[in-house]
Amino acid sequence: MHKIVISLLVMFIISAGVNAQTEGPAPMKPEMTEIWDPEVTVVTPGATPVNAPSDAIVLFDGVNLENEWTDSKGGVPGWKVENGCATVVKGTGTIKTKRVFQDFQLHIEWRTPEEIVGESQGRGNSGVFLQERYEVQILDSYNNRTYRNGQAGSLYKQHAPLVNASKKPGEWQVYDIIYTAPRFNKDGTYFTPPVVTVLHNGVLIQNSVKLRGPTEFIGIPEYSIEEHGPGSLVLQDHSNPVSFRNIWIREL
Amino acid sequence: MHKIVISLLVMFIISAGVNAQTEGPAPMKPEMTEIWDPEVTVVTPGATPVNAPSDAIVLFDGVNLENEWTDSKGGVPGWKVENGCATVVKGTGTIKTKRVFQDFQLHIEWRTPEEIVGESQGRGNSGVFLQERYEVQILDSYNNRTYRNGQAGSLYKQHAPLVNASKKPGEWQVYDIIYTAPRFNKDGTYFTPPVVTVLHNGVLIQNSVKLRGPTEFIGIPEYSIEEHGPGSLVLQDHSNPVSFRNIWIREL
Amino acid sequence: MHKIVISLLVMFIISAGVNAQTEGPAPMKPEMTEIWDPEVTVVTPGATPVNAPSDAIVLFDGVNLENEWTDSKGGVPGWKVENGCATVVKGTGTIKTKRVFQDFQLHIEWRTPEEIVGESQGRGNSGVFLQERYEVQILDSYNNRTYRNGQAGSLYKQHAPLVNASKKPGEWQVYDIIYTAPRFNKDGTYFTPPVVTVLHNGVLIQNSVKLRGPTEFIGIPEYSIEEHGPGSLVLQDHSNPVSFRNIWIREL
Amino acid sequence: MHKIVISLLVMFIISAGVNAQTEGPAPMKPEMTEIWDPEVTVVTPGATPVNAPSDAIVLFDGVNLENEWTDSKGGVPGWKVENGCATVVKGTGTIKTKRVFQDFQLHIEWRTPEEIVGESQGRGNSGVFLQERYEVQILDSYNNRTYRNGQAGSLYKQHAPLVNASKKPGEWQVYDIIYTAPRFNKDGTYFTPPVVTVLHNGVLIQNSVKLRGPTEFIGIPEYSIEEHGPGSLVLQDHSNPVSFRNIWIREL
Repeated sequence: MHKIVISLLVMFIISAGVNAQTEGPAPMKPEMTEIWDPEVTVVTPGATPVNAPSDAIVLFDGVNLENEWTDSKGGVPGWKVENGCATVVKGTGTIKTKRVFQDFQLHIEWRTPEEIVGESQGRGNSGVFLQERYEVQILDSYNNRTYRNGQAGSLYKQHAPLVNASKKPGEWQVYDIIYTAPRFNKDGTYFTPPVVTVLHNGVLIQNSVKLRGPTEFIGIPEYSIEEHGPGSLVLQDHSNPVSFRNIWIREL
Repeated sequence: MHKIVISLLVMFIISAGVNAQTEGPAPMKPEMTEIWDPEVTVVTPGATPVNAPSDAIVLFDGVNLENEWTDSKGGVPGWKVENGCATVVKGTGTIKTKRVFQDFQLHIEWRTPEEIVGESQGRGNSGVFLQERYEVQILDSYNNRTYRNGQAGSLYKQHAPLVNASKKPGEWQVYDIIYTAPRFNKDGTYFTPPVVTVLHNGVLIQNSVKLRGPTEFIGIPEYSIEEHGPGSLVLQDHSNPVSFRNIWIREL
Repeated sequence: MHKIVISLLVMFIISAGVNAQTEGPAPMKPEMTEIWDPEVTVVTPGATPVNAPSDAIVLFDGVNLENEWTDSKGGVPGWKVENGCATVVKGTGTIKTKRVFQDFQLHIEWRTPEEIVGESQGRGNSGVFLQERYEVQILDSYNNRTYRNGQAGSLYKQHAPLVNASKKPGEWQVYDIIYTAPRFNKDGTYFTPPVVTVLHNGVLIQNSVKLRGPTEFIGIPEYSIEEHGPGSLVLQDHSNPVSFRNIWIREL
Repeated sequence: MHKIVISLLVMFIISAGVNAQTEGPAPMKPEMTEIWDPEVTVVTPGATPVNAPSDAIVLFDGVNLENEWTDSKGGVPGWKVENGCATVVKGTGTIKTKRVFQDFQLHIEWRTPEEIVGESQGRGNSGVFLQERYEVQILDSYNNRTYRNGQAGSLYKQHAPLVNASKKPGEWQVYDIIYTAPRFNKDGTYFTPPVVTVLHNGVLIQNSVKLRGPTEFIGIPEYSIEEHGPGSLVLQDHSNPVSFRNIWIREL
């Protein structure tokens, strides 16, 4: 017993110290790389991945739009809420969330009209603006050629989607968006740019792409960067009756 | 007519040129930032986001495991396939894909046993190894305290999940994993590290985290980096009868 | 004339608009990518690259150490100032700048004793701590083997230098350091880690490396990350009479 | 003795194992984070930071231009070599290195004519093209207003310098450039963009900026990205007699 203890101890002393120089780092133990605290916060997930988890803010439940949204002037949204979805009413303008957000995970479902009207940018056009300025394009891109950096799932005029995972017009589609807001330098330029990941109907179409600046219809995004804090989500009225449902967000 | 044409032309020449210095960049036109080619590849998404899209490789359809997987020695997997899922048979060892992958999007569903046996790392333990070396932990983390960087959804011993989005034992759970393989310097170190995003039951739990090196049970990951190419997916036999179903992957 | 003008105008209209779809982005003009404002701030550089430019804060000019530095308790530094340099006096402890810094460019010159005493970490040991916690190692690494992640120019125990560009003991050496401070998440972890570039005697030895956490003599840096703001520069008293001169810093 | 050994051993067992849960990671030893191998390569630095270190390739020593450079067609450069420097001869065209480079540290000294001729882009204009396509602008920017993203030290039409650290015309100036070449995706887009750091006369003017694409006089750099391998350094003939000396490069 005595001898065993001593030899164990000697083995330990040798292994932990002296011969590190010749044989690489001294051996560690599994416990040395365990981290126990703080305990990770528990969240109850939805029944399926499209259902809101317990820590999400439900922005639209299919019934009430006024709770979380206003029109662009702060008034009641002019969009139609019916049959569990909200639909753009042409000319009533964009709608925006009352709350503002920084980094987040967003789930949003949308549908372009079953009846095909128009072409290219004129068919089923709407958009989700992150922090009021960075647009994830919504468009009927099912058999509807347009410029690649302006089709459904593009970060408008900055990044075309990796693939076109569009469903047919009239079918519900899903965007799951992971967004990291920009941080700024003292001079108002980006210290880190906005970063966006998008899954379209479960298919990865934007993989941590960095935005060059706010979305611009005309011109170069880099030239219009200005410091900003948290911002609303904005849904676009682009004159087409696009519908929305099951919108939830988790602040990160 | 003549005069109008000339004055229009003069206006254009002036606006495009001379006064850029005092008024910022010259005006552009919307078309200048449209990109039309190449056309984005069309993918047919699954019926719901958990269903395989048309460009996915189905690695396990609930019936046949041998098509795409072997045991660790290249033989037929010893795991049990029954009732639409494959279940770890203790002692038969890990299974690995015949194909190797670099960057990918992976969907995988798993279930820990309804009957609770063991605690901490001893309950419902398995794991998905990306490129054979980077483990996304699988564990019954429902009311089962363990070290935070070793619970379900952790990048084992490197990154704890942002939240614990576990379902109860016996319920099916989902990982959607976006993986960017490392690139290497000439000396075998990372030029860019592996980057991993994970959604657990639809909840973001790893947000583009960078791995420090291969998963290590003992020691410091940085110290074991070695250059490697594409690698198999590996599912771990950690002696607990964890089940799997609906596994598909899209190469990026 | 008339016809020419019209045809020119028609050409312009066509080129700017209609046929973008088939021929890629419409042509731009050079002025459209010029940015004139704001004018870039003028800085007068030093006579040579080692001399302080006009916007630098001179932290030590070879004569007065008290202006910009204190000992670790806020008192007058106990180090010896003589012959245009400041030298560690063993046992008087570290010295630190009165000012605190965030992102910066630092120039610092140092010299280990000409007479060789000790070996490995015991010879000519000192260090520059960025923001009080991130050490760029100073050591006599000329023919003095030690662990690679602890030699001169290492980010101590995190990143070995790319090459060993040491001069002989007794000769003046130069570090030019570009440092970007970490930004933090709400939970106190890094949003972006500290990033460090070091030129040693004009040779690049650290190329935008990311720190894993504060410098640790024992243990894993990741485990000791805590939120912090701007911090002092600290020069280490490691019992060896290392000397310093020509220290200047530019805030970025 | 016997008792001491046993109690030491018991203490060790306790500290290494059981109570990790309540007290954080088990204690490590300093040796566990030392890395000894491989030994870092020794480089002899120049006498001062502007002098070539032992592992540099000297691209121009003031005497012989033909050894390392050709004109744009592979012939002998038409530039004038005199008084230890090479000077642009208008109309002879750019010169390029025979060798090609990937990632590197570059030191280059240049001088615009003492006699001031022209203004804005017309005064002392030349440029260093990294990998034949990414221009660091050379210009007499001493009291010479031009667009900010086109002045000396700009990454032409992409990034203005942080400050204007220009010396007077007729004085020698220094660029120290750290360059990381882009890596590419399979589709020819950037996996990681080119990254550039520049010190101008010892002053940091570009801090790890990411390029958006090749340098473009007209148009948007993103639109002209094409996969490429290592490339030559190119010095521009922009009709002004700019001079060069002491050019050396270290491959990283």
